[in-house]
Amino acid sequence: MEIPEQDAAHMARAVELAGHGHGTTTPNPVVGCVVLDAAGQVVGEGFHAYAGGPHAEVVALAQAGERARGGTAYVTLEPCDHTGRTGPCSRALLDAGVARVVIAVSDPNPKAAGGAARLRDHGVAVTSGVLAGAAERVNEEWLTYARLRRSHVTWKFAATLDGRSAAEDGTSQWITSPEARADVHRLRAASDAIVAGIGTVLADDPHLTARPNAAQGHSGVPSIDSVSRGETVRVVVDPEGRTPQSARVLDDHAPTLVAVAEDVETELKADLLRLPRHAGGLDLHALLRELAAREIVSVFLEGGPTLAGAFIGQGLVDRVVAYLAPAVLGSGPAALGAAGVRTIGEIHRLTFDEISPIGPDVRLIARPAIQPGRET
Amino acid sequence: MEIPEQDAAHMARAVELAGHGHGTTTPNPVVGCVVLDAAGQVVGEGFHAYAGGPHAEVVALAQAGERARGGTAYVTLEPCDHTGRTGPCSRALLDAGVARVVIAVSDPNPKAAGGAARLRDHGVAVTSGVLAGAAERVNEEWLTYARLRRSHVTWKFAATLDGRSAAEDGTSQWITSPEARADVHRLRAASDAIVAGIGTVLADDPHLTARPNAAQGHSGVPSIDSVSRGETVRVVVDPEGRTPQSARVLDDHAPTLVAVAEDVETELKADLLRLPRHAGGLDLHALLRELAAREIVSVFLEGGPTLAGAFIGQGLVDRVVAYLAPAVLGSGPAALGAAGVRTIGEIHRLTFDEISPIGPDVRLIARPAIQPGRET
Ligand SMILES: NC(=O)c1ccc[n+]([C@@H]2O[C@H](COP(=O)([O-])OP(=O)(O)OC[C@H]3O[C@@H](n4cnc5c(N)ncnc54)[C@H](OP(=O)(O)O)[C@@H]3O)[C@@H](O)[C@H]2O)c1
Ligand SMILES: NC(=O)c1ccc[n+]([C@@H]2O[C@H](COP(=O)([O-])OP(=O)(O)OC[C@H]3O[C@@H](n4cnc5c(N)ncnc54)[C@H](OP(=O)(O)O)[C@@H]3O)[C@@H](O)[C@H]2O)c1
Repeated sequence: MEIPEQDAAHMARAVELAGHGHGTTTPNPVVGCVVLDAAGQVVGEGFHAYAGGPHAEVVALAQAGERARGGTAYVTLEPCDHTGRTGPCSRALLDAGVARVVIAVSDPNPKAAGGAARLRDHGVAVTSGVLAGAAERVNEEWLTYARLRRSHVTWKFAATLDGRSAAEDGTSQWITSPEARADVHRLRAASDAIVAGIGTVLADDPHLTARPNAAQGHSGVPSIDSVSRGETVRVVVDPEGRTPQSARVLDDHAPTLVAVAEDVETELKADLLRLPRHAGGLDLHALLRELAAREIVSVFLEGGPTLAGAFIGQGLVDRVVAYLAPAVLGSGPAALGAAGVRTIGEIHRLTFDEISPIGPDVRLIARPAIQPGRET
Repeated sequence: MEIPEQDAAHMARAVELAGHGHGTTTPNPVVGCVVLDAAGQVVGEGFHAYAGGPHAEVVALAQAGERARGGTAYVTLEPCDHTGRTGPCSRALLDAGVARVVIAVSDPNPKAAGGAARLRDHGVAVTSGVLAGAAERVNEEWLTYARLRRSHVTWKFAATLDGRSAAEDGTSQWITSPEARADVHRLRAASDAIVAGIGTVLADDPHLTARPNAAQGHSGVPSIDSVSRGETVRVVVDPEGRTPQSARVLDDHAPTLVAVAEDVETELKADLLRLPRHAGGLDLHALLRELAAREIVSVFLEGGPTLAGAFIGQGLVDRVVAYLAPAVLGSGPAALGAAGVRTIGEIHRLTFDEISPIGPDVRLIARPAIQPGRET
């Protein structure tokens, strides 16, 4: 099937619109929509901005009004067919009298899928797979979550050009620039959870908050069940329950989950997540499934090297964000610990997606060369 | 002093011309020249192509002929004032009747310097320092060699995103792509010498030749003294004289120097370079001074990690070229060994000069943040 140039251009705009929802739509996908009138003029644009808010199609159709009749709608994700917090979008498109619907990626969610079929049943021309790659990319966290029923994992690390994240004596402030650290902050804030290993908590006593001043206005420890959307959950991976009660990660600046082994006895006053053991640690698949069950779509893994190695080794890192400083150390702790590779054939291959200077540093974004659950 | 835009534009072209001489002018600098007539029209262009060949100014003036009279010459390096294999360029410029000479970088070589002064003495208007940064860059190997009286060192390494250059079992073929390896080949061929440590020679038995087929037409082992220019010299840093007589690096494909400690007794049949010991190895300053004395302007340091760490630790790396593959290992030998850093304040700071994709990999070129002997 040949895709007319116009279709690609309108879908590219829809993908751009979808991106505006990044970090605020959890547990929903990001979606963008462009509506043309019968003559091919753009008459409506919309994106899904937050869970509970109107869907992209509804926003764009509202803007288009009567001019949508006989027109075309471009949607980055198959329109939903179920009545959730809002009515089904397939219904809204039919009511608006749209003649053609162009879809980038089909909905992997069985509860929501069926929109394309319903539209076809009602005589609407449906084209699928237009600009699917870009639409996959903009929605990668949610698609991983929906297809694999686990949270999407971004592993971030900061290191020297030779892959060290601290000097021999453990000092590391600062290897990367303020610009790089501000960029990390943005990525953190767009994630639903920040995950660290107990080694990092014991060594650095980090806050692990996305916004250092988020405490203002809080009273008491927020519970994981009442987490207002947009607030980043902190997760400590701590098999033996060694997190000190006084650890900053247990303060009241954000909700925190401590993942411990199911057989461990602990007095720790914290929201505990009990998980099976696996390979000298916790079962990280189980961790990500449990987090997904709590509607945590995207996870920002901040280390340390041991935990990151375990995630990599188990094929559970979906995106790597590396900040490399123009500097070398030659000794000191490595950015990544053992990841199950003994010989070169077992190397974890990635592909670079983005290479960009950030202040004096460079940021490299890479993804597994073979991605689980990717449609395209 | 304000630099007219025109001056910068013509000098930029002269810098571009200079670059054409890269890798073939040893032991001479690369130099570019642009000549304008009295009306400001470009009437001559030239660059220095090989040692013994005409200087850039002479080439450009020959092309300009009578039209140079009353005109302007742009030269990336101060015109020489001595009679070497060719006559002094200051003389040639005076003879041509040029009214103004614009210079980017002054000549640090006392034998050649004085050209600007002589021109001024004869009533020529001389402007210096125009586009000095770019002219420094294009000529960095030679300027380091001339100012510091030692060879310029480029350290190249290939590694994963996490800084490993082999898997746990030592296997490393291949971490980077054929495109990256071809690029290494080009850089090697443009260097006067390739340097490796005895560890690398014993582990990998590398050829260390810039052009694998350079042997054709050779008869017998070429001596270091009779090295025809353009042929890359191989250097093994081997304090105890442990290089096996059968090592490939001692074959007849290119001349080879084995640097050993001055107190070592060895039967090794090879061109030996006897050097003082320093900090558990050889005195690397002495090595680079000796190589410079043999008119080796640029050295390509190919490892291994121990020797690279020693060079970095002693502040003897002028440029780092890193090829990073989109892959992670999590274990295995690091790309760089101990470099004298105990705590973060002692980190070796660089600045990134170029960040470019090479096939699926990324190439990062960096230089010390503080460069010894840099004029600008
Ligand atoms: N530069 C950076 O970007 C960065 C970021 C974060 C941290 N760091 C540094 O990293 C250091 C701490 O790292 P680390 O490697 O010691 O500790 P870590 O990775 O933070 O935590 C490791 C611990 O996680 C637990 N764990 C749970 N499940 C596991 C599994 N499946 N596999 C392996 N471990 C599992 C284990 O706890 P038990 O031992 O209790 O079983 C293990 O010891 C600190 O010095 C910190 O400064 C650097
Ligand atoms: N990925 C890459 O880009 C790359 C490139 C090259 C090599 N490699 C790998 O690196 C490994 C070999 O590296 P290596 O670190 O074992 O050996 P190396 O760096 O090649 O050589 C180290 C030796 O150099 C001698 N040396 C002389 N002067 C020295 C000084 N001032 N400081 C320190 N050493 C000095 C010492 O010899 P003595 O012990 O005799 O005193 C020392 O043991 C191989 O496995 C090779 O495959 C990787």
